[in-house]
Amino acid sequence: MNTEKNIKTLIIKKPLKLDCGKTIKDFPIAYETYGSLNSKKDNAILVFHALTGDQFVTGINPITNKEGWWSYAVGPDKAIDTNKYFVICSNVIGGCMGSYGPSHKDPDQKIFGTNFPVITINDMVNAQYNLLDHFGIDKLFSITGGSMGGMQVLQFISNFPDKSKTVIPIATTSSHSAQNIAFNELGRQAITADSNWKDGNYTSNETNPGKGLAVARMAAHITYLSKKGLQEKFGRKLQEREDLKFGFDADFQIESYLRYQGSVFVDRFDANSYLYITRAMDYFDLAKQFKGNLSEAFINTNAKFFIISFTSDWLYPTQENKDIVIALNSIGADVGFVEIKSDKGHDSFLLDVPDFLNALKNFLDKSYEEN
Amino acid sequence: MNTEKNIKTLIIKKPLKLDCGKTIKDFPIAYETYGSLNSKKDNAILVFHALTGDQFVTGINPITNKEGWWSYAVGPDKAIDTNKYFVICSNVIGGCMGSYGPSHKDPDQKIFGTNFPVITINDMVNAQYNLLDHFGIDKLFSITGGSMGGMQVLQFISNFPDKSKTVIPIATTSSHSAQNIAFNELGRQAITADSNWKDGNYTSNETNPGKGLAVARMAAHITYLSKKGLQEKFGRKLQEREDLKFGFDADFQIESYLRYQGSVFVDRFDANSYLYITRAMDYFDLAKQFKGNLSEAFINTNAKFFIISFTSDWLYPTQENKDIVIALNSIGADVGFVEIKSDKGHDSFLLDVPDFLNALKNFLDKSYEEN
Repeated sequence: MNTEKNIKTLIIKKPLKLDCGKTIKDFPIAYETYGSLNSKKDNAILVFHALTGDQFVTGINPITNKEGWWSYAVGPDKAIDTNKYFVICSNVIGGCMGSYGPSHKDPDQKIFGTNFPVITINDMVNAQYNLLDHFGIDKLFSITGGSMGGMQVLQFISNFPDKSKTVIPIATTSSHSAQNIAFNELGRQAITADSNWKDGNYTSNETNPGKGLAVARMAAHITYLSKKGLQEKFGRKLQEREDLKFGFDADFQIESYLRYQGSVFVDRFDANSYLYITRAMDYFDLAKQFKGNLSEAFINTNAKFFIISFTSDWLYPTQENKDIVIALNSIGADVGFVEIKSDKGHDSFLLDVPDFLNALKNFLDKSYEEN
Repeated sequence: MNTEKNIKTLIIKKPLKLDCGKTIKDFPIAYETYGSLNSKKDNAILVFHALTGDQFVTGINPITNKEGWWSYAVGPDKAIDTNKYFVICSNVIGGCMGSYGPSHKDPDQKIFGTNFPVITINDMVNAQYNLLDHFGIDKLFSITGGSMGGMQVLQFISNFPDKSKTVIPIATTSSHSAQNIAFNELGRQAITADSNWKDGNYTSNETNPGKGLAVARMAAHITYLSKKGLQEKFGRKLQEREDLKFGFDADFQIESYLRYQGSVFVDRFDANSYLYITRAMDYFDLAKQFKGNLSEAFINTNAKFFIISFTSDWLYPTQENKDIVIALNSIGADVGFVEIKSDKGHDSFLLDVPDFLNALKNFLDKSYEEN
């Protein structure tokens, strides 16, 4: 995959001390921007991507040739209107779309593999903070993201309380639950069970742990959809056949759908990155950073919060989003909250869910008018 | 594993036409009994096991040396009181505890592997029906089972409407949902992704697809527990360490728990059997056998039904159990229903949940007094 010409990178010279204790420097952050930064530099929105996302938020992703992951929400006249706002998104460290990660080479020119340091959500946002200096932005207009993107939003405003005017965590949590960890561990076990994973050294061994990675993706994909949504979309519909075939091919549409999701994913994602990023999510526990008091994470910010959850999201259910609202309310923070009705599960934030997109647009545009 | 001395088998001489069109005969059914059949032969309860269960319902399973899978419910003075009732349970065909399955040899003395016919829930109960003849039982006092056991209960009474006085499906469904199929497909993909699976011929290749089977088990295990139950039991508790280790070993207790569940499972279960039995579950759609009208499945029986669901079971949620109640009510059948409050998820039916065990005991004992 000759991707380099399509990937903008910023080399971060400044040393970054990671939570694991190691320090990295001179490392790349791959990023993309949409719209234009105005002269006052007060219209920038930093978007954080989820587990398998990347910096290509909207329009055609030049690597996959498919629509960017948040094309429904970001673009001219859309909820995050790029005629008005300057949108920045960067690939997380640990990722595989140009930012420093396990497929990069160590100082001895060996591919890191599992010798890459284990990174955290905190490390991710500290790395991305350098983008503000790069663009000369003193204060962002907003930070937003769904799922792991929402975790980064929470960590960012906690670390840099005066660096964003508004804060929009979506379909997220302040701490990964046991069930969340369990599903991520399942994915990691699927990858490491693949004999082609080779302890993470598959590139030098010229093998590909694609089967394990596909299984990991299938597992995660099930968690992104609601039981009801799956039933309505697929039910027991058969895949191009009149009746059951009494074999192990995909009889049901849901089976071929999952197999397809697994197979296209391995073309665009790196198995070791999947291990690292899920690990960062599992390690995320914002309250723990403040001795169990989540409110303390936000005590120094005057930002205006807007938290969004979805009724059928069972991965990061409404209650976990509400817990953030409660923590903010208890310190008198400026916080709005909406639970959007949707059968589309956790994936709702990525899809064409008009109530969600309208709520997001209204909050942004009204807050911007108050500027 | 020298298991044969502990496994009782009945050889079914009578040909059985399977749903796939093939006919099998002279095949073994492995079974176990508990308690004594009375002289009137009216105290027999046929118990059907779930996906990974077997005929060793209670007491020490002589193969695994662990407690039988329904030890909480079955035994002297327990809900299914073996001082009073004669309990029969057999390993399903397709299984791996002695009944005819993919690890058996074909007439040419080759191990079947994936050449074993794809079987259905209907095939399973038709095979098990032969146990009634074997014991000279004209009519069972009850049939019961949870999960896939419940599917067999429903299919059995539909096929043999006058062969049981009472019918107790537990935590089950009349038709596998898209999400159910998705999780089973995930498990199958995990197994077949293991390079040691060798297209099902792992025994002749002297390989073991244990890693894939363990991943399949982990996936399923997550679905057996509730989000809340997992959070209460494990939360973010660490595994014998003071803090996070910044590596990929099991930092969290939930991770080591899942790994343990996977590893012990592969010692007692066969990968191909996992494929076959999950396939049978996915194929299960009782209403479809009656042109979409579930009530028709039960139109010929006068049996007394008692249906049990659990509040936190998200695999076979209360609504799917209620759908069976509704189908029975619409034809004026004798049906009771109870939803038991439990945080233990789908696994509740296997665990020490007193309200459940009391409900089961009361229904059985009261119905038996009416005998």
